[in-house]
Amino acid sequence: MATSVDEVLDTYRDGHALARPFYTDPDLYTAELDRIWYRDWLFAALSCEITRPGDYVVHKIGTESVIIVRREDGGVSAHHNVCRHRGSIIATESRGRARSLTCPYHQWSYGLDGSLRSCRAVPDDFDKSAHGLRPVHVREFDGLVYISLAEEPVDFNPVQNALGPMARPQGLAAAKVAHSIDYEIAANWKLVWENNRECFHCVANHPQYVLANYDRYDEIDLNDRIEREIDEATARSQAKWAACGLTAGEFAGGGLAQFPSPDGTIWYSANRTAMVPGYLSESMDGTPVAPLMGSYPDPDIGVLRLRTLPSFWHHGSCDHAVITRLTPNGPRSTKATVSWLVDADAQPGTDYDLDRLLPFWQLTSEQDWLICERQQRGVESRAYTPGPLSAAKEYNVVNFHAWYLRALCGGA
Amino acid sequence: MATSVDEVLDTYRDGHALARPFYTDPDLYTAELDRIWYRDWLFAALSCEITRPGDYVVHKIGTESVIIVRREDGGVSAHHNVCRHRGSIIATESRGRARSLTCPYHQWSYGLDGSLRSCRAVPDDFDKSAHGLRPVHVREFDGLVYISLAEEPVDFNPVQNALGPMARPQGLAAAKVAHSIDYEIAANWKLVWENNRECFHCVANHPQYVLANYDRYDEIDLNDRIEREIDEATARSQAKWAACGLTAGEFAGGGLAQFPSPDGTIWYSANRTAMVPGYLSESMDGTPVAPLMGSYPDPDIGVLRLRTLPSFWHHGSCDHAVITRLTPNGPRSTKATVSWLVDADAQPGTDYDLDRLLPFWQLTSEQDWLICERQQRGVESRAYTPGPLSAAKEYNVVNFHAWYLRALCGGA
Amino acid sequence: MATSVDEVLDTYRDGHALARPFYTDPDLYTAELDRIWYRDWLFAALSCEITRPGDYVVHKIGTESVIIVRREDGGVSAHHNVCRHRGSIIATESRGRARSLTCPYHQWSYGLDGSLRSCRAVPDDFDKSAHGLRPVHVREFDGLVYISLAEEPVDFNPVQNALGPMARPQGLAAAKVAHSIDYEIAANWKLVWENNRECFHCVANHPQYVLANYDRYDEIDLNDRIEREIDEATARSQAKWAACGLTAGEFAGGGLAQFPSPDGTIWYSANRTAMVPGYLSESMDGTPVAPLMGSYPDPDIGVLRLRTLPSFWHHGSCDHAVITRLTPNGPRSTKATVSWLVDADAQPGTDYDLDRLLPFWQLTSEQDWLICERQQRGVESRAYTPGPLSAAKEYNVVNFHAWYLRALCGGA
Repeated sequence: MATSVDEVLDTYRDGHALARPFYTDPDLYTAELDRIWYRDWLFAALSCEITRPGDYVVHKIGTESVIIVRREDGGVSAHHNVCRHRGSIIATESRGRARSLTCPYHQWSYGLDGSLRSCRAVPDDFDKSAHGLRPVHVREFDGLVYISLAEEPVDFNPVQNALGPMARPQGLAAAKVAHSIDYEIAANWKLVWENNRECFHCVANHPQYVLANYDRYDEIDLNDRIEREIDEATARSQAKWAACGLTAGEFAGGGLAQFPSPDGTIWYSANRTAMVPGYLSESMDGTPVAPLMGSYPDPDIGVLRLRTLPSFWHHGSCDHAVITRLTPNGPRSTKATVSWLVDADAQPGTDYDLDRLLPFWQLTSEQDWLICERQQRGVESRAYTPGPLSAAKEYNVVNFHAWYLRALCGGA
Repeated sequence: MATSVDEVLDTYRDGHALARPFYTDPDLYTAELDRIWYRDWLFAALSCEITRPGDYVVHKIGTESVIIVRREDGGVSAHHNVCRHRGSIIATESRGRARSLTCPYHQWSYGLDGSLRSCRAVPDDFDKSAHGLRPVHVREFDGLVYISLAEEPVDFNPVQNALGPMARPQGLAAAKVAHSIDYEIAANWKLVWENNRECFHCVANHPQYVLANYDRYDEIDLNDRIEREIDEATARSQAKWAACGLTAGEFAGGGLAQFPSPDGTIWYSANRTAMVPGYLSESMDGTPVAPLMGSYPDPDIGVLRLRTLPSFWHHGSCDHAVITRLTPNGPRSTKATVSWLVDADAQPGTDYDLDRLLPFWQLTSEQDWLICERQQRGVESRAYTPGPLSAAKEYNVVNFHAWYLRALCGGA
Repeated sequence: MATSVDEVLDTYRDGHALARPFYTDPDLYTAELDRIWYRDWLFAALSCEITRPGDYVVHKIGTESVIIVRREDGGVSAHHNVCRHRGSIIATESRGRARSLTCPYHQWSYGLDGSLRSCRAVPDDFDKSAHGLRPVHVREFDGLVYISLAEEPVDFNPVQNALGPMARPQGLAAAKVAHSIDYEIAANWKLVWENNRECFHCVANHPQYVLANYDRYDEIDLNDRIEREIDEATARSQAKWAACGLTAGEFAGGGLAQFPSPDGTIWYSANRTAMVPGYLSESMDGTPVAPLMGSYPDPDIGVLRLRTLPSFWHHGSCDHAVITRLTPNGPRSTKATVSWLVDADAQPGTDYDLDRLLPFWQLTSEQDWLICERQQRGVESRAYTPGPLSAAKEYNVVNFHAWYLRALCGGA
């Protein structure tokens, strides 16, 4: 790692916001791509985007372009979208369907499994088997597709084991994308995560969100009345969920679950939280805005929360799920794709309406992006001095730093 | 200072234009920010923009954002616009009015004096007094507000003493901004100043300006007739001004006053010049275009010129004042804000009309920006060789270089 | 040359595509400007653009701007477009007509030959003869104008001797530009040349081009029938051309002539190729789209191809000529100007119509730019591995690499 990166790391001060170069330094950004984004498991696509053999999507990250394609045998393959001849991209659109992956330049043609099937004007002794598309690790479970650009990625099974059973009833694999918005946030990707990891900012910035959820109630915001309300809502909800086979996960109560773990080792988590009485969905008025998803027997299933660092969070209500996927785009820019999923059979106009489906999370997301962009503008200043993080309110920001430093410095 | 900056400085040749890297080198630009723009006194705002307690404007320079605010006690404070918690900017708009300065992220709230008044979820032993907004030096006099980002700025009193008495009759403090235009000039800020410091280019480029002023008449452009005309206009004007208590300053005659001083130490100056007979205002036809400003008894008060390096020049007629504020924006770009001021009580439509108020200085300014942009395009060339400056015509460009080198190399 | 450039060169592997940094590295790009673009002879303008004394065009390359002007004596001069006083550009428009070259800033005025004629306010001992515009080498022949920014460029006579006699009958000097399109291609300039130097990609990408030309038929695409057809077309054409005094050049047959030479020394070439029977012009239907050009006695003159590295190629039909001029614009961008020439006396609407004149080469060009942009996107990837070039199909890409490495490493 470059010396300048070490210098940035040396500015780290436990329990405080990160110093300016963490959000601006181009060498650190390059190190983050190498050590995190080109190594970790990234949420990349939804199974429901590639249901038929030959369906593919292209996922871009940094300089890399990856084709994620459904094979004839029903499995999913991921390949670098780079021809082995002269390097042209092969899939030129962001999604599509193809019987083979044929380079538009000189028609080198690859199977959906990436093997080179045909090419012209090569020597007689040319070894096709040595010229398949470069593979990318890929895993699919319960509607979610992850890739890793690492040579040897870390074990994915713990993620699948932890998130799969919780995600299954949400029915993401039998869903469809009702709408999707691509954002370009003028802020470093870590600011976006730090924002996501605390609800200290919620009361003033997310008026609709705090009506539906108890996230703002960390220890110091609890009082007897609200504590009783949360306890009752949680007890009632968890008893009901248990009766219909839904798992709540370990977390219960107000505030945010500890994530990532304080030692920075746990980069995935799932839990189901009770909503404020009167709310059955994360919609503006709390009423469902689409048909029940997956195997949910009843709207009263709370909110299913899934997260994996560094690229994914999910909020699932009974009737719709909202997935956010992050991609860094330079030290000062982050791409976010927010997708709203509903049951695959739900019909727009009849079963759901974007005017009712989108606002809750579109507002919440855009409020957060604005906050992050303002913070980026401020941390650029020479006068910026990282302040103390609140143990009661910002514990997960501290945890995020633990994960980040561990990931960047190469801890296994 | 970086070696590369020394290499740039080594190309300096007395009496000649500056070499290419002075206008293109990013390391030099960084050094200029550090040694000049983040250290010197900068004209930042007008008193009349922040008349009521709580009125504020935000001034940006390089990576820095500064809130300039009128306090309850009538004084002016300036603070870095960066929250001491996690670094968000606090004032999100370029101007406004506020009872307190509250961060939009987690509501840390500061008084207009910058002191931290309230914040939540901090430890019991948290020291609020150590977490006020970082202060910026600020000085206000006769309608002009200056800031300095230096820890210990140079003495401001000489500026105030030199410019204040000259500026006072113009009534800037009792004026209002009738119109303001923000320009982005595709040229290094020093090209803009070099252009400002000579009128050798005026005849061919500023047809309206040379009708009103004698600036073009340096020694070699004088002839008996014009010399007599200037002498008469000056003598008549100065006698009249003296009678009504107006100071002309030391300079009289054609051409431009020596500014900055040849040794580069004097970075501020003021003088009042006679206009060409028939001109009572820097307007297209020479007639006043607004009511008298300040304490002027009569339209025949010539042109009041004020300048402070590196960011400010002012041309005041009897009826309006035009102020130009420069801010560098990279080695190849300069922001200029040109503001037209009239008496605070003047009513648009009745007392003044933008169609008559703006053209003289809008044309002159835009003619200059175009010149500077053409020069930037040329000095980028490998073939560019700095040519000789004219002692008769470009003495102030030489003086500007003296000031610049002194400022950059840290002379006190 | 910088070490990093050596590192890039070390990745070269004979017979293979170039590695990623050849198309992305900023230091290599700087070296290319220094060693190739600021040294080699560049096609810059057409004689027919500057027919009258004082007519000029401005050619830009990297940081440089060059005025190419017709002198009173009928010759052509080229000067750096940079005033010797303070460096402003002199010609502010991309083309025009002038009696003298006068700087818009302080009116230093130069003759069309670049000599300083007048300037004001200089010392008595000022030496005008030492302050002429810096000259640029220029050569004109048969309608084409070349410049070189080198101090001492390589001998131009061989180019003129090789291309002049072939170009003369096309009548470029007596032509006019009927239309011109400026493109900005998001690809390195070498990708554009590599694309130009093979027709392996033509069948799938240039449906109109392959109907008119035999370029696609390299050895492995020949069969008895097509070989016989090419031989017959060539024999018939060459006999006819010989009868009317037209030279075909050394190359005959299908595929592309060897260019540049395998050893990389020959950077210019000319040849005339037979078209597919039924085609008399590179137009969509093969029929002429404008009056005969130059001294052609008859439409059946095939296609006159001229090329000079690094900036020029030409396809001339009996009735029109299409010239492409390349200019690099950073490691990832190339400007291309495509110009369609017809006889100077041809009248639009009557003698030619842009709807018929443009499509053949506009389509072909834009198809190629798209290919190059896709390749640039792919070669940016860390996963890109340069593949083997086909000896049968991509021999000229190998030759281009030989020329490029020779040029970059300074071979004479």
